[in-house]
Amino acid sequence: MSRKYIDLNCDMGESFGVYKLGMDEEVIKLISSANIACGFHAGDPNVMDETVRRAKEYGVGVGVHPGFPDLIGFGRRDMDITKKDLMNMIIYQIGALNIFCQKHGVPLQHIKPHGNMNNMCDHNKEMATHIVDAVLEVKPDLPIYVKPNSDLHRVAEEKGLPFVLEVYADRAYNNDLTLVSRKIPGAVITDPHTVAEQAVKIVTEGKVTSITGEEIPLQGETICVHGDTPAQMELIKLLRSKLADAGVTISSFTNRK
Amino acid sequence: MSRKYIDLNCDMGESFGVYKLGMDEEVIKLISSANIACGFHAGDPNVMDETVRRAKEYGVGVGVHPGFPDLIGFGRRDMDITKKDLMNMIIYQIGALNIFCQKHGVPLQHIKPHGNMNNMCDHNKEMATHIVDAVLEVKPDLPIYVKPNSDLHRVAEEKGLPFVLEVYADRAYNNDLTLVSRKIPGAVITDPHTVAEQAVKIVTEGKVTSITGEEIPLQGETICVHGDTPAQMELIKLLRSKLADAGVTISSFTNRK
Amino acid sequence: MSRKYIDLNCDMGESFGVYKLGMDEEVIKLISSANIACGFHAGDPNVMDETVRRAKEYGVGVGVHPGFPDLIGFGRRDMDITKKDLMNMIIYQIGALNIFCQKHGVPLQHIKPHGNMNNMCDHNKEMATHIVDAVLEVKPDLPIYVKPNSDLHRVAEEKGLPFVLEVYADRAYNNDLTLVSRKIPGAVITDPHTVAEQAVKIVTEGKVTSITGEEIPLQGETICVHGDTPAQMELIKLLRSKLADAGVTISSFTNRK
Amino acid sequence: MSRKYIDLNCDMGESFGVYKLGMDEEVIKLISSANIACGFHAGDPNVMDETVRRAKEYGVGVGVHPGFPDLIGFGRRDMDITKKDLMNMIIYQIGALNIFCQKHGVPLQHIKPHGNMNNMCDHNKEMATHIVDAVLEVKPDLPIYVKPNSDLHRVAEEKGLPFVLEVYADRAYNNDLTLVSRKIPGAVITDPHTVAEQAVKIVTEGKVTSITGEEIPLQGETICVHGDTPAQMELIKLLRSKLADAGVTISSFTNRK
Repeated sequence: MSRKYIDLNCDMGESFGVYKLGMDEEVIKLISSANIACGFHAGDPNVMDETVRRAKEYGVGVGVHPGFPDLIGFGRRDMDITKKDLMNMIIYQIGALNIFCQKHGVPLQHIKPHGNMNNMCDHNKEMATHIVDAVLEVKPDLPIYVKPNSDLHRVAEEKGLPFVLEVYADRAYNNDLTLVSRKIPGAVITDPHTVAEQAVKIVTEGKVTSITGEEIPLQGETICVHGDTPAQMELIKLLRSKLADAGVTISSFTNRK
Repeated sequence: MSRKYIDLNCDMGESFGVYKLGMDEEVIKLISSANIACGFHAGDPNVMDETVRRAKEYGVGVGVHPGFPDLIGFGRRDMDITKKDLMNMIIYQIGALNIFCQKHGVPLQHIKPHGNMNNMCDHNKEMATHIVDAVLEVKPDLPIYVKPNSDLHRVAEEKGLPFVLEVYADRAYNNDLTLVSRKIPGAVITDPHTVAEQAVKIVTEGKVTSITGEEIPLQGETICVHGDTPAQMELIKLLRSKLADAGVTISSFTNRK
Repeated sequence: MSRKYIDLNCDMGESFGVYKLGMDEEVIKLISSANIACGFHAGDPNVMDETVRRAKEYGVGVGVHPGFPDLIGFGRRDMDITKKDLMNMIIYQIGALNIFCQKHGVPLQHIKPHGNMNNMCDHNKEMATHIVDAVLEVKPDLPIYVKPNSDLHRVAEEKGLPFVLEVYADRAYNNDLTLVSRKIPGAVITDPHTVAEQAVKIVTEGKVTSITGEEIPLQGETICVHGDTPAQMELIKLLRSKLADAGVTISSFTNRK
Repeated sequence: MSRKYIDLNCDMGESFGVYKLGMDEEVIKLISSANIACGFHAGDPNVMDETVRRAKEYGVGVGVHPGFPDLIGFGRRDMDITKKDLMNMIIYQIGALNIFCQKHGVPLQHIKPHGNMNNMCDHNKEMATHIVDAVLEVKPDLPIYVKPNSDLHRVAEEKGLPFVLEVYADRAYNNDLTLVSRKIPGAVITDPHTVAEQAVKIVTEGKVTSITGEEIPLQGETICVHGDTPAQMELIKLLRSKLADAGVTISSFTNRK
């Protein structure tokens, strides 16, 4: 199917105290949804407040971006975490961001687990279940961003939590729709035009050319982009331009309603 | 004035990870309101979840108990903290506890700043203003527990934030209703019967005998008790018994409505 | 072989700020070596200072007890940690404890990784290598406590880091000298007399009766005991008494030199 | 007196995890001494290791830069901290950095308290005493960088801890050698040439022109510079050039021995 709308999401609000991370002021103007860190893997109360305010200013959808309690590792290493710990940590982070949304008068639009909390759920049904259950406990209508064909996708579907299919324009896909491991050459697509083409193909044709060259059906409702470098700003601008050329409107889910 | 109701409040939920603090399981049965730590000076998501659940089980009112970001110091040392930092830290902690309340279907009843965040507001109008403003931003109807005649009291009154007058049964009062400094002999009342008498006098007569022996008017709507030791459990039981003898009902504010 | 000496080691210094953990004041009198937390999974500078002081007072050998940077999880969950992170975190913790040893004029006697940092090294040669390499970088003569037949044991031996064979009196052994998983009934030996018998047998006969009833050779130079409860104090006393009856002297390695 | 040598010191190693702070790779080439964060207000074990390695590579003297336990506030707010807490936190941080020095085979050259731990000691003799006592306990020969006429200066002198007089080229001085408060216009000197002139005057004439225009004697053995921005790199280069013109050699204390 060809989509009329696509969402561009980006991790934001990952600064901490005096430490600045990401080009939030720039990238906010180029995306439609922000995944906002909640103080566990990154972010702090000031940054959360400012990031929600800025998202509101630019009409960008606000998402909870919960992570592992590992600031020094930025939530980017596997942690073996119990059901109770994981559920309560996610609920806590939802609550913390939610009140800044309430303060600024914007709704929570979505949730997207951060880093390895997300990656571990590609093939870990138990952990995916804990995450989905945590959201269902407190925000049963809050859509979760999931990779197509991941355990997080399957569990959300089974349990009736709304979900949004998230795709990567700059990552190569295997035939089973998993991402090609970063250890394999070609896993990350570096040429901006190839990245933009993959995005347009997924959005307008519902297909991706896999690493083995096959055309594989792939539905994507949101594209994950990055906001750390000037080069990434240029890439997003190119992506936006090519999507516009294809007649696709970039829009958060909040704004479509 | 003689009160028909009195609230007994106690700090709770101050355990962290494997570290256990306080006799929460015992004291919850003896009090009417719980001040629940939110993960900054103490507490963690599991502890918050369990403490709110337990408060609901026993019909105890739930209060936010925000503290300084100082786990190693338990929020018990002065920190010179900016307006923005303080406001956002308090809002964050309100949000974190609030979602566990939402999960368990209980309302937030009150807020009481912890340790030196509270003590600093006895004589620091600027800081008291930041705290009151933070609450007004997100929960303008949430009562704050204040020491009579403190800057926190005055600011809440001026700004129209509901407040609850909190008194200490085991601390000696100066004539201006400030607490006698712990550095002065007699500041802490150790005899259980004297403690109970002071409580009954405040509640039924609206007066306290100050450290200099004068009768000073003192209104108290909630009495602060402690839950760390078996001796404190006995003290609370005595307090309850003496208050009952005086015809006073121990009740949270939630339960009176 | 029958040993004349045995070391009893216990985790200590795991309190943090206002949080107290373990009966350090009691157990220090009953053991010969202390594994002292260094502020990552537990412990803080005050606790380290006091624990080293106390170890000196009772002639107890001082060991570094490095853990994962996970206070909220007490270092008791698996973390996937890179070589660089792991090595530098261990070196940092050695340095932190070492200076308190220097302050009190006692030598560092040994190192023993804590919790899952240790458990992961039973069957993870890469991680065991990083730990051994870290010690070799800064304290190449510092013995490491290892479970017999673990990867940590093998790597220390291969790389020439001195090691001490550590056994458990209260855990059942498989025939390959691994500990029986806690998920299997009988993994933890609860009867004090059976615990004491296993200890004496290992020390005097160099054998253990495995979970399948076979006599397996097992050399142990140090026995791990726990110091959390009064029951454990009694167990250690029984252990000491039975070892004394068997002509075995309890002594740290420092004291034997 | 006219000095032949001057030390340029700069805070370094203040990155943390993924968070990068400061232009360490550039500034290290322009200074003679580095104040290295130890993981409390900033820094982590990887950063400490790399920063000590880099200091060695460039022949830069290594200093301990202990801070308050306040990563989120970067050690830049006043904390009311007890004698025991402060002393043990400083000892811990000295030990942590010292072992990386030992690993790389470089000596500890000096200690300089960070941020508000330093500023509070301008006029707080009690706190200055705790810091000096902590250093005396474990490194009695380690020089401490002090502002002339501060309580830290006085206490170090009284107690016999070696000290190094530290001056600021970019800050205006009061007549009593205290720094002009940042709240007062003119407190920070922004013109690079004026900064360089003040540096040269202090070093070659032993005098500074105070904010009121008087010539005040001021001895400086080390000048504090900053390494956060390209403009600061240029400023340090100008400073180096002007000092060279005046016949002054920039050198750490280690290198002069």
